[in-house]
Parts: sequence; structure tokens; C-alpha cells
Amino acid sequence: MSTFITIGRELGSGGRTIGKLVAEKLGIPYYDRELIDKAAEESGFAAEFIEASEQKVTGGLLYKLGMGMSYGYDNRVLPLSNQIYLTQRKVIKELAEKGSCVIVGRCADDILKDSEGLLRVFIYSDMEHRIARAVKCYGMNELTAKKEIRKSDKERARHYGIFTDQHWGDRKNYDLMLNSGKFGIEPCADIICKLVDKSKL
Amino acid sequence: MSTFITIGRELGSGGRTIGKLVAEKLGIPYYDRELIDKAAEESGFAAEFIEASEQKVTGGLLYKLGMGMSYGYDNRVLPLSNQIYLTQRKVIKELAEKGSCVIVGRCADDILKDSEGLLRVFIYSDMEHRIARAVKCYGMNELTAKKEIRKSDKERARHYGIFTDQHWGDRKNYDLMLNSGKFGIEPCADIICKLVDKSKL
Repeated sequence: MSTFITIGRELGSGGRTIGKLVAEKLGIPYYDRELIDKAAEESGFAAEFIEASEQKVTGGLLYKLGMGMSYGYDNRVLPLSNQIYLTQRKVIKELAEKGSCVIVGRCADDILKDSEGLLRVFIYSDMEHRIARAVKCYGMNELTAKKEIRKSDKERARHYGIFTDQHWGDRKNYDLMLNSGKFGIEPCADIICKLVDKSKL
Repeated sequence: MSTFITIGRELGSGGRTIGKLVAEKLGIPYYDRELIDKAAEESGFAAEFIEASEQKVTGGLLYKLGMGMSYGYDNRVLPLSNQIYLTQRKVIKELAEKGSCVIVGRCADDILKDSEGLLRVFIYSDMEHRIARAVKCYGMNELTAKKEIRKSDKERARHYGIFTDQHWGDRKNYDLMLNSGKFGIEPCADIICKLVDKSKL
């Protein structure tokens, strides 16, 4: 039996750090966008899309997908973002088959929604704390941070909406939603860890 | 120093029961709609609205407000729901002045938003669990339960929106949001209690 903790999060909420801490405290693997994209690229999952259109691909696969070089099954053209999503989806399902883990972002809550042992978390915060964190962690100035946060909120909501047909950050897609600005980063990780049945890791 | 735990909740989520449990476990008072309305009625707070329009009122005050018998300050006619809300607001602020407490519903999260020691909780659940709870606790049949739940969601969202200018159930108005269908009633109460600094009760 495994436990899958998916963490959706707002930019500047510290969700990624909380995810890492939870994984560390529970002693289970942690995956985020970079790791999933890398795994997708290395796995060759996406190759089938390309092979279907009889195109030969060398080098960075997702990069090439992003550059518009591939087609979908049956030679129908699939939007490239769909292809990348389908690849990530496969990677996430494969990773979950390996056992308990923490996955940050990538619509993992929706992708694993039928899995037993799933805990769907969403981390958010007020704008003041988000800006302060973006300034501290990403070296932005306050104005840039505010712009990037607003841009990120729109992009994440759009991405989540397209691929899950649900609203990003809507309570019905999560089991636990935490305001990290209220509780702090480490306490949020502790709250999540306490909710996990350690015998099922 | 006091702690105020406000609990917004969906019909059938068990939010009221969770609020009662939290109050019991922490040994602090619990207030909900019935108690607040009764306190408002007994306090005579609303009398000033009536006196302003030189109307004489006897008997159940909020009942009469609801029946369209009163006017606002300076003889301007205020919508009756506004008058009732203002009365509840005063009662909630008075109750909070007495010390730590749990308040369920009545836009208390917004009314006390500038208070130190405020923990704003929202309890929700999936439709299946909500229907099951409404059938069990309110003796409804499944069809009626579903209809009442939908009606209640609309009414609570409308009421909260009018008086707070915010969206009911929107994460930015809460610190902690819990899916009671996932965790269960008693565990939700325990999660909340663990987040309270007992030295500040």
C-alpha cells in the first residue's frame, strides 16, 4: 500500500519547499516539474507520438515537442501542450507505481485521483507573504514579483483548467488547503505529515 | 490574549458538529446561528434601529425586523437583511470581547478579520458524503437532501457575498480548509485543535 501526496500551490506560497520537507520527514521520494520533465524526456514515452508521424527525433525530446516537431497518434495533429501533458501523465503514473511519493504541481492530483492512498493538498497565501517570498527566494524586486505572481496564477489556472476540466485552487479538488502565510512553511509540512498514516508508506 | 476560531461550512459537511467538538476539546464557548440570533434578540441591540424610526416594538425583535417593521439610522430605510446582519455583527463582536470562542457561520471570519488570534476555518465535503450526512442528521431523503444542499450553497454564497464583498468558500478568506468527507468529523476537530496555541486561550 502506498501514499501519494500531491501538492498544488500558488507561486510564492512555499508549496515546493513544503513538498520537499514532507518528503524528507516521511522518507519518501519527491518529484516536481523539473524531475518529471526530465523523466519524461529520458523515458522515451513521447517517442511514440513522434514515431506515429514517422518523424525522426534526436536530442531533447520535450524541447522538440515544444518547438512543434511532432504529431499525435494516427497522424492527427495534437496540440503540442496536449502531447507534453500526456507524456507527463504517463511519467507520473509510472512514478506512483514505484511507491509512496510527494508530487508538486503537474496536475498530479487529477492524474492520480483514482489512486488509493491519495492526499491532495493545496498551499496558498496572501499577496503580501507571496511577494516577500518571491523577493527572497527568486531575487525579484517587489513590482516584478507582483506581476509574476499574477501571471503565474493565470497560467496555472489556465493549464489546470485545460487538462483537468476543473478550477485550479477550487476546494472540491483538494482534501486539505493551507494558508502558508498564516502557519509558516515548516508548520505546514508538519500538519501534512501528521495526516499521513505512517503504516501505509 | 484570546483565540477566535471561525468555521464556515457547507450544509452536510459536519462543520457545526466539528465546531462544537473543537469548543468542547479546548474548553471554550461555542456559538452558532441560533445562539447569535437569540443573543441579538435579547440584547436589544436592534432596538436602536427601531427607535430611530420612532416605532415601538414589543416581543421578538428579529422576528419583527424580518416582518418589515423597522427602519435604519436617520430614518433611512435599510434593507431588513442589512439590519439583521448589523445586529449579528455587533453581537459577534461583543461575544469576542468576552474571550476565546468558536463561532460557526454568520460571516464571523469577516467580522473578526482584524482581530488578533483569529483562525479562519472552512469545512467542505464531496456531494456523496454531504447527502449521506443530510439524510442521517436531518432525516431527509436523498433527492430532497441534494436539492437542499444546492439551495443552501447558493444562499450561503449569496449571503456571504452581499455582506463581505467576498466569495464564500474562496481560499483567500480562510487559513485552513478541510475536506471532512476525506478525514472524518472527529479527526477534523483534532486537526484544528492541534493548530491552536493553548497558552493563548
